[in-house]
Amino acid sequence: MRTIEWTPEGVVLLDQRKLPRREEYHLCRTYQEVAEAIRGMIIRGAPAIGVAAAMGIALGVRQSPAASLDTLKAEFRGICDTLAATRPTGVNLFWAIGRMRLLFDDLVERRADLSAIRARLVEEAQKIKEEDIAANRALGDYGVALVPAGKTVMTICNAGALATAGYGTALGVIRSAIREGKNVDVLALETRPFLQGARLTAWELQRDHIPTTLITDNMAGHFLHSGRIGCVVVGADRIAANGDVANKIGTYTVAVLAKENGVPFYVAAPLSTVDLNIPSGDAIPIEERPAAEVIEIQGVPIAPAGIAVSNPAFDVTPNSYVSAIITERGVARPPYTESLRELKQR
Amino acid sequence: MRTIEWTPEGVVLLDQRKLPRREEYHLCRTYQEVAEAIRGMIIRGAPAIGVAAAMGIALGVRQSPAASLDTLKAEFRGICDTLAATRPTGVNLFWAIGRMRLLFDDLVERRADLSAIRARLVEEAQKIKEEDIAANRALGDYGVALVPAGKTVMTICNAGALATAGYGTALGVIRSAIREGKNVDVLALETRPFLQGARLTAWELQRDHIPTTLITDNMAGHFLHSGRIGCVVVGADRIAANGDVANKIGTYTVAVLAKENGVPFYVAAPLSTVDLNIPSGDAIPIEERPAAEVIEIQGVPIAPAGIAVSNPAFDVTPNSYVSAIITERGVARPPYTESLRELKQR
Repeated sequence: MRTIEWTPEGVVLLDQRKLPRREEYHLCRTYQEVAEAIRGMIIRGAPAIGVAAAMGIALGVRQSPAASLDTLKAEFRGICDTLAATRPTGVNLFWAIGRMRLLFDDLVERRADLSAIRARLVEEAQKIKEEDIAANRALGDYGVALVPAGKTVMTICNAGALATAGYGTALGVIRSAIREGKNVDVLALETRPFLQGARLTAWELQRDHIPTTLITDNMAGHFLHSGRIGCVVVGADRIAANGDVANKIGTYTVAVLAKENGVPFYVAAPLSTVDLNIPSGDAIPIEERPAAEVIEIQGVPIAPAGIAVSNPAFDVTPNSYVSAIITERGVARPPYTESLRELKQR
Repeated sequence: MRTIEWTPEGVVLLDQRKLPRREEYHLCRTYQEVAEAIRGMIIRGAPAIGVAAAMGIALGVRQSPAASLDTLKAEFRGICDTLAATRPTGVNLFWAIGRMRLLFDDLVERRADLSAIRARLVEEAQKIKEEDIAANRALGDYGVALVPAGKTVMTICNAGALATAGYGTALGVIRSAIREGKNVDVLALETRPFLQGARLTAWELQRDHIPTTLITDNMAGHFLHSGRIGCVVVGADRIAANGDVANKIGTYTVAVLAKENGVPFYVAAPLSTVDLNIPSGDAIPIEERPAAEVIEIQGVPIAPAGIAVSNPAFDVTPNSYVSAIITERGVARPPYTESLRELKQR
């Protein structure tokens, strides 16, 4: 499956709003269309958003009519700002923009010619994509040892191939475990309001013939209490320097219930998700999304008109609930302030 | 609002499957139609199911063509068995059937004539309804002192007028608190898969102008961690002798998160919900409902075809998470084995 692809016509995204009913691809011909696709959740998942933002920048710069470096510099700022304004919580978006900006500044400083800058940025965006897939495969392999055989892995949201450039973070760990012959199955939380678990994780795992059972989010406690769950593995949108984890709303709930029932709770994320500039989870901005996502499901109203709604898209799981953080350079254990810094700097 | 009503034509139920979109009444002309309405969740909520079952028995006996006491006795058994087979978890169903059976047996023993038996059973069913409303008002008043003013009350599912003969258990406590001038608002969990919170609790509270915010179930932890929630109040489908509580799936999850965050967790239920014959929650049967409830929402598919599903309708909250149980004869505190028995026998 192709989550995101660079083509001569623009950036092609698998439209995740339409899964699992339809497998449709959405072509973004401009960087503004990439920004809209991120905001509208045609593509979602922190690592995938990072790749999309990098490709959006490359697209914007390639299409820019700028004839001078100064004009291009001004346009570049606007392109980056537009993409940065799409989603506030995940850090891969800002990480990818920062990486493209560093490269651009370097090329500008070296007075590279405009066509060389354009080519290098396109190349860099594709490199970010390839590196993301490689990182997922590496972290998947590091995670295998943590997954108990003969048990069920619980996961929330979609931290799979669809949330990344491919392979997946949490689902990457499950893929690696199964590839190495471990007998595991998956309990996927449907993940209201956007239903990434029901629509995307169930679809992605079914395609890979990985045995998966779908449950609603409020069943998490019941099953974590049942003795069936060997571990929880989730992705992350941003990890603070102290190991506090922002992830899809509901993650904190699952983490507390896992701890209460003695089930290990693992976070799988590339190091680009670790934000050493943020000391703790309290400083992570939490995106509030439109009320319609709660009041309607696929356009069908499920609540009385006019009812007030809260729709925080993410929550923060304090590091004390996190058994380990699985990255592409190894597994971080508490205290995370040290282990994460060490892995980032390795 | 009329949740359930005895009329000369039969038992009239507010069709809870159609709320909040349509306020339609469903007429059950036979006891079999009452049983179907309970199984199909046209009426739901343990106390309301108890009232419906009693009315169903009265309807069956009233319509029976039996000309002798022996024929009526045989039919009575069949009527009770049909109604008992509808929902396994809530105990009010069995409690109400047992109460009707006791009365019937007594009338039979006294060789009452058939028309007198028919009239007495109709009268008893209506008495059960009136007693349920009175019990809710009484427990609501006992609960007021437990609700902190100036804070938010969290609740799951619908333990309101719709789940009872009127007024409500958990929502009865909230109604009483507001009537006594307490400044509280409500955070209602939508309660997948059947969405009783979004469809019924939000609708019922909105009608009563009680400020209500709707959230998805996986947001429970985030808000319980926020400091905004003064207490959780939920209903119950069955309470074991030791205070373990079977209630809507997701209740255990909320209870664990409440305890973890120092938020009191209250259960509001009439004593007919307390089952002293069941020593602990392990012995409470948990109903598994159809997969379609998870895979579709209001008929719209939200998951890939063929995905496996679990759909337990209830979970069990161990007594250690329950701060108090609010009944119509007072508030039970741990140890519940003593306090519940004392209240039941008072």
